[in-house]
Amino acid sequence: MRKIQNKNPLQLLKAHHKVALVTHVHPDGDAYGSLLGLLHLLKSKVQQVEAFAEEDQRSKFNFLPGFGEIRNVSGLVAGEFDYCIALDCGSAQRAYGIESFLKLGSQITIVNVDHHISNTKFAHVNVVDVESSSTAELVACLSNEMGWELGEDIATCLLTGIVMDTGHYLYENTTDKTHEIVANLLRVGADQGLIRYNLYQNRPVQNVRFMAHLVDHMELLSKGRAVLMSVPDESMRQFGVAYEDLDEMIAYARDIAGVELAVILKELNKTETKVSFRSKCWLDVNELASQLGGGGHQRAAGAVIEDSLQEARKILIPMMETLFAEVTHENGSV
Amino acid sequence: MRKIQNKNPLQLLKAHHKVALVTHVHPDGDAYGSLLGLLHLLKSKVQQVEAFAEEDQRSKFNFLPGFGEIRNVSGLVAGEFDYCIALDCGSAQRAYGIESFLKLGSQITIVNVDHHISNTKFAHVNVVDVESSSTAELVACLSNEMGWELGEDIATCLLTGIVMDTGHYLYENTTDKTHEIVANLLRVGADQGLIRYNLYQNRPVQNVRFMAHLVDHMELLSKGRAVLMSVPDESMRQFGVAYEDLDEMIAYARDIAGVELAVILKELNKTETKVSFRSKCWLDVNELASQLGGGGHQRAAGAVIEDSLQEARKILIPMMETLFAEVTHENGSV
Repeated sequence: MRKIQNKNPLQLLKAHHKVALVTHVHPDGDAYGSLLGLLHLLKSKVQQVEAFAEEDQRSKFNFLPGFGEIRNVSGLVAGEFDYCIALDCGSAQRAYGIESFLKLGSQITIVNVDHHISNTKFAHVNVVDVESSSTAELVACLSNEMGWELGEDIATCLLTGIVMDTGHYLYENTTDKTHEIVANLLRVGADQGLIRYNLYQNRPVQNVRFMAHLVDHMELLSKGRAVLMSVPDESMRQFGVAYEDLDEMIAYARDIAGVELAVILKELNKTETKVSFRSKCWLDVNELASQLGGGGHQRAAGAVIEDSLQEARKILIPMMETLFAEVTHENGSV
Repeated sequence: MRKIQNKNPLQLLKAHHKVALVTHVHPDGDAYGSLLGLLHLLKSKVQQVEAFAEEDQRSKFNFLPGFGEIRNVSGLVAGEFDYCIALDCGSAQRAYGIESFLKLGSQITIVNVDHHISNTKFAHVNVVDVESSSTAELVACLSNEMGWELGEDIATCLLTGIVMDTGHYLYENTTDKTHEIVANLLRVGADQGLIRYNLYQNRPVQNVRFMAHLVDHMELLSKGRAVLMSVPDESMRQFGVAYEDLDEMIAYARDIAGVELAVILKELNKTETKVSFRSKCWLDVNELASQLGGGGHQRAAGAVIEDSLQEARKILIPMMETLFAEVTHENGSV
């Protein structure tokens, strides 16, 4: 097991402590997985532990053990907690309800457990391990270091965080240590079938139909090196598809043979268009997004264009064509 | 590491031996992965080792290290080999060129390394481990038992076999031991990026368009519990899609929310229609296929109907509707 550089924050916790756990706003799989995994883990270790997050009963992660126990921050009282552990939060601004905990007084210690390289180390105790695929992996690792035994519910929650942040072990952040930790989570009873059914075999039929609609209307540019999908707001309402569902659709477009760059233009309103970029092997889309006032990572980035969908398309098409016209190397790099 | 029940066949091999490796006809990822993994592994252990398989330069597995070294069985001479190891072959009938090796004379020992429950134990030495996700996992396990070091090429080949036979760790055959072995393969340098690019980010654009076409024409039956896709031979030729590509399309249909049964009808000719079944959670499609004279597994099975596509559809629709009309339990089981 990897040794965490900083002090293991779980060592700070004593049996008489009262611990609040929070995660980031708009929680994703790793947010919920690490939050609920640590919730179950600490139940037998401290006097009181509670998980806090934005309310979202319709979340696709509502199958996770303990999902119904998640609280909101209204009604917090001073002295209710000694520690507040923020999970998967890159900054204090991202941490749900953190200001409510700070208001409880100076006796509360804020702990930051995260794996984002951009983490601002905003807490009293910061454990940021950028080599962990996910915060859930980091929690498993910290717990292993303590020699704590994991139960089935803990393992199911942590495994969910890992599979969601690694694209089911497909992204580059997946390491030998990730698989080692997963082996252990399965050994103690993580429910793979539950995760598979809820996250991979439960795609709404309207998403499937919308995907087909997007493919029927996609534009292949630069001899198939780039693909552009335009999404009027009306078509999303017509199919009943949510904004976050576009993520898997742009990934599907990127994974077409020969495609290096996939772009989705999403109409926000008549004067604003969201542009999302994904690249496969070599193109730095963070740089591309920066040119439009946005940003992100090398392989996934975005920006907002202050113009209509049609006008945004007219900006993007020549931009994409110029980009691939400059490609001279055989391997496709510029 | 799991202890293999039977004697480890790698113990039989001595430095002066000449070893032929074969795999099954129509090789898939586990066939090629275990074949080439063991080829690289034995190069430093025995005097001579050669891999044999059907020629298919257009295979999507042609990125595997050593793919170009694969031989066909023409020109074999007596005494050329002491051992013939068949990998991933359920029966002698499935093993490519096995009769050519048997003709070489009685001094050749046939070894059978496989993970299929239906294995007929056809060889002189049989190592069949049905708990291995894949033959590649079994080869890694046998090699670990020997204390042999794995190199990068070996690891890349074996990892390919494992990911293809487990649906990238999504199928039920994925165990803690699978992940443990994968952790080790990554540690010694398996090239995840190469595998990701070639197998998951390289889908031909015509497959993507054909998928959209199938979705546009799919029939949802029994209140969305079943989905039927009909594929005229002409439409496959029109899109330029191969028969084996239908596998991912039926899986995509099965993974729609609420769907328990996905069926693809594929026109073979005017009087024969291939029917493929996939189920998600509880339906035994092996039984369903048996009613039509076919068979398979509980969650994946098939049959050939001696009739036209249109007539086959007329047989299937009432069959599917009856099936789900009988569902009375809340959890969907009959």
